[in-house]
Amino acid sequence: MEASVALPKPINKTLAWRALQAAGLYRRVKPVNMREVHKDPKRVEDYSVRTEHAYYDYSRQQVDSKIMWGLKQLVKVADVRGKAERMFSGEKINHTEKRAVLHTALRQQSDEPVKVDGKNVIPEVKKVLAQVKLFSERVLSGEWKGVTGKKIKNIVAIGIGGSYLGPEYLAEACKKYAKEGMTLRFVANVDGSDFAQKTADLDAEETMFIVVSKTFTTAETIKNAEAAKAWMINKLEDDDHSSKDIVSKHFVAVSTAKEKVAKFGIDTNNMFGFWDWVGGRYSATSAVGAVPLSLFLGYDKFEEILKGAAWMDHHFRTAPFEKNIPMLAGTIDVWNSNFLGINIRALLAYLNPFSKLAPHTQQVEMESNGKQVDIHGRRVGYTTGEVVFGEPGTNGQHSFYQLIHQGVLKVACDFIGFIKPQYPLGTQSATEVSHHQELNTNLAQLDALAFGKTLEEVKAGLRAEGKLTEEKIDALAPHMVFDGNRPSSLLLVKEATPFTAGLLLAFTEHRAAVKGFIWNINSFDQWGVQLGKKLAVAVRKLFIRANAAVEESSQPELVTTRDDLARASVVSNNALIKGELPTDEDVRNAA
Amino acid sequence: MEASVALPKPINKTLAWRALQAAGLYRRVKPVNMREVHKDPKRVEDYSVRTEHAYYDYSRQQVDSKIMWGLKQLVKVADVRGKAERMFSGEKINHTEKRAVLHTALRQQSDEPVKVDGKNVIPEVKKVLAQVKLFSERVLSGEWKGVTGKKIKNIVAIGIGGSYLGPEYLAEACKKYAKEGMTLRFVANVDGSDFAQKTADLDAEETMFIVVSKTFTTAETIKNAEAAKAWMINKLEDDDHSSKDIVSKHFVAVSTAKEKVAKFGIDTNNMFGFWDWVGGRYSATSAVGAVPLSLFLGYDKFEEILKGAAWMDHHFRTAPFEKNIPMLAGTIDVWNSNFLGINIRALLAYLNPFSKLAPHTQQVEMESNGKQVDIHGRRVGYTTGEVVFGEPGTNGQHSFYQLIHQGVLKVACDFIGFIKPQYPLGTQSATEVSHHQELNTNLAQLDALAFGKTLEEVKAGLRAEGKLTEEKIDALAPHMVFDGNRPSSLLLVKEATPFTAGLLLAFTEHRAAVKGFIWNINSFDQWGVQLGKKLAVAVRKLFIRANAAVEESSQPELVTTRDDLARASVVSNNALIKGELPTDEDVRNAA
Repeated sequence: MEASVALPKPINKTLAWRALQAAGLYRRVKPVNMREVHKDPKRVEDYSVRTEHAYYDYSRQQVDSKIMWGLKQLVKVADVRGKAERMFSGEKINHTEKRAVLHTALRQQSDEPVKVDGKNVIPEVKKVLAQVKLFSERVLSGEWKGVTGKKIKNIVAIGIGGSYLGPEYLAEACKKYAKEGMTLRFVANVDGSDFAQKTADLDAEETMFIVVSKTFTTAETIKNAEAAKAWMINKLEDDDHSSKDIVSKHFVAVSTAKEKVAKFGIDTNNMFGFWDWVGGRYSATSAVGAVPLSLFLGYDKFEEILKGAAWMDHHFRTAPFEKNIPMLAGTIDVWNSNFLGINIRALLAYLNPFSKLAPHTQQVEMESNGKQVDIHGRRVGYTTGEVVFGEPGTNGQHSFYQLIHQGVLKVACDFIGFIKPQYPLGTQSATEVSHHQELNTNLAQLDALAFGKTLEEVKAGLRAEGKLTEEKIDALAPHMVFDGNRPSSLLLVKEATPFTAGLLLAFTEHRAAVKGFIWNINSFDQWGVQLGKKLAVAVRKLFIRANAAVEESSQPELVTTRDDLARASVVSNNALIKGELPTDEDVRNAA
Repeated sequence: MEASVALPKPINKTLAWRALQAAGLYRRVKPVNMREVHKDPKRVEDYSVRTEHAYYDYSRQQVDSKIMWGLKQLVKVADVRGKAERMFSGEKINHTEKRAVLHTALRQQSDEPVKVDGKNVIPEVKKVLAQVKLFSERVLSGEWKGVTGKKIKNIVAIGIGGSYLGPEYLAEACKKYAKEGMTLRFVANVDGSDFAQKTADLDAEETMFIVVSKTFTTAETIKNAEAAKAWMINKLEDDDHSSKDIVSKHFVAVSTAKEKVAKFGIDTNNMFGFWDWVGGRYSATSAVGAVPLSLFLGYDKFEEILKGAAWMDHHFRTAPFEKNIPMLAGTIDVWNSNFLGINIRALLAYLNPFSKLAPHTQQVEMESNGKQVDIHGRRVGYTTGEVVFGEPGTNGQHSFYQLIHQGVLKVACDFIGFIKPQYPLGTQSATEVSHHQELNTNLAQLDALAFGKTLEEVKAGLRAEGKLTEEKIDALAPHMVFDGNRPSSLLLVKEATPFTAGLLLAFTEHRAAVKGFIWNINSFDQWGVQLGKKLAVAVRKLFIRANAAVEESSQPELVTTRDDLARASVVSNNALIKGELPTDEDVRNAA
């Protein structure tokens, strides 16, 4: 009884929240007028952050000084700073799993101790990094050889979710910096296509698999690892090369489950560890990313990624609210979502190699903050989480931007721009723009979203063209109106390097954390993935039973009804067992 | 005056809409209880469609018989059938551009005339297809040779948006069926990375570029085509091979702009036409898809794609409402979006090669239906368009499903399942499931979303495990609750073939059209892409001016203020010109 009395007020019952709520109701009706506020020469100065490595312009967001003041109060009331400090210092803020949340320790540049249960984790972190460095140097130098004596050239990382999306983003973003002759591919999906297509053209003698699974039990990953083992042994086993040697030379693991790794046949000297305080989706700067990326890019480039992430960690931890990029981005997301009702965000990176930042961010945001109870187990009375999606610019402009500009639904836009190209192409002259310049002319989308085009302006434009009658102009013009006042930000970095790729990774992480701290939810667990897994177990048994029947050369028995709830699944599962689409009769039989 | 009186009632003022609105308000509070309705043996029978080629189960959507009846009335009131017939028969229903909308004519299997402006288009369609067939046979047989006498093996299609996403989806989905030794890549983004990375390992002698642009003026595509020309000439030009010959042997075009194609240097005999009644995002079954896909898969496989699409066209045109898959899917989308407020949809194809169906669908949905005025130019008073995103299953389960299961935001889910694998992998035995079986066990996600898990069930489960005290169970259990009643559908097809890939393409198109017809908007124009393009022109001029200064070895002049509105862009554009991130001073100078 007393415990429940002592619970803090839900954030939406605080004055700070309510003030923002009132402001939001007003601003839904009367948006901050971008044309007006941008007349103020101070607008850009006041609503942008200039740092050494990133420029963040949020002047086209639907905010004014009162709203920013309100958000600052909200950050105080929610104790975002305090919660962040508890994260940085190793407290077990992931309380449902009783774990610390210390991905920042993975890239800490100093030796300052960070303790979990009284034990400094930094030496362990450095130890694993040293192990990765040595290992990657051995492979890249050719000292490490495949079982037939060839140098390893192809790396295939097998992992899914958090063991995949972050490393894949970094690998694509940094591909330009890859060691010559090295390839890196990711196999995630349990669908056999993924493995088959990714390995079709690989020479097994020159290929190494990295199996990435914390528990070494992830169904998809272990199935793919078994397929990889069979593939490799099938290709290389002969009198001189035993399956044992093949596995030990061509497989390494990133895991914490030593016994299972050993049982698979991997030499545990080639197992790279991490810790329970590294969440899957926050693991790209642990061995999960370190091993594949050091083999692909060289350890020094991976270190640059760590440095970029550490720069952002430091910035997040120390910069004041007004100058703190992830803090501002996170609180503005809350403003858009909870107070303006805009809970869809498009991530638009204007550089093709950054195309995988969107799916990674989608995971970080939606898995971290798609929660319905607060850390005290109370139902939240407000929206949490956002839906994040994106394609690289300019591709998206020719696809979904139509809805963003002229749709009824509102989408907040995050533009990421790069001053310099990774691959300079085309002529840059007094008559021509280069490819990269052409790309960046399209950052004009920001102005189109903010300032729009009124009916009168559209009509004036059509009149000036002189092709249409007034009547036709009246009919056409409404289709060409842009309301403007659609919120967007620009994050500008100078170059797309491993350093900035790491910086953007940490930016994504902290931005999501800020929101979780405000919403007072646990951004670091993921109970929502459990029920589906559990129900799949029952279906697996059905398939196994059907397989057994086929082995005995009898007809696999169909299910008539598994239980009252899952009749629809009985129909589809029977279709899977029979290998035929359901017919009217099949459906009736299950009914 | 009279004309405006004669305008039809906006759809949201009709009785059919209002009845659904009332039902929606009720169902937001009291959802259709999936556990209850699925006890009825008839639920699955009544809420699924069985056809020869696809099984569609919508029994887990938030609908009941009254709602389905209401949606049927809405379809009648909105005259969806009539509008669809006008589309199929070549009327100029894209009225803002005065164009017919006839992508269905591209794959019509019969010779039945379809007329635009009194002229039958079918013979022209067949003529272009015959041209593609002949051309692809010449290339694949090796009769067509590169300028140095080698057979063409690598196809690079240069195009963006509608000239890219549909063909890319089909190419990935059908990759298994590709002609041996043929590769197909797509270059879309104007960022030089896209071209550089896609061509890095290609032998120019064996490579052919297809330039896809209706007007041959699309900025990205023409820049990439120029880069391709320079790349090719740079690699192959010598005394024996003139640049003219190189271009004519290694470049073909899909376009309607004969003069521009010729000026680029492409032999117009190798230009494949289409027509103004083929919208970009609906063009995958025109020459836009036909040329690259016939070269990659062989013409016969492309024909299978057409047949699959034609099957769906016929189904859509003829099946009654209750048995019409795109009609049901489209109207249920309207139910979710307009009446339940769920306007985000996840597209979850459980087969890795179908991973590009989501970005293609995203374009079709968001570009077609992201509109704010109806066909009469009136502001709509209701939500239009949806945000669609997706990743292949099971990948998404380890990423964003958390929010879908336990988030506050609601996301409607479209599952697509395949009974048979494209790449069988793993052992299917009495003790083990194959990869494909493992994949399909995860269709249990549908039940998890529908039926959920109550607090009491969670607690009972934790108690049964016997590891936690009652107090700890009370603390943990709320985090493990699944509300259920989250809407999803399953579309099951037998195999992932070119036929079913085409079927799903047409399904996507008609589903979007159904919604556009109900919302009474023009789903076939895209004025929302114009303003950004126009503003980019001004930035291009800035860059050109800066380039000119560099050529004259003088400092490029920075902009102080372009106009009152775009001060924020002045800062970022100057950064791009200087090649440095903005500083405090830069921002103040612009202010």
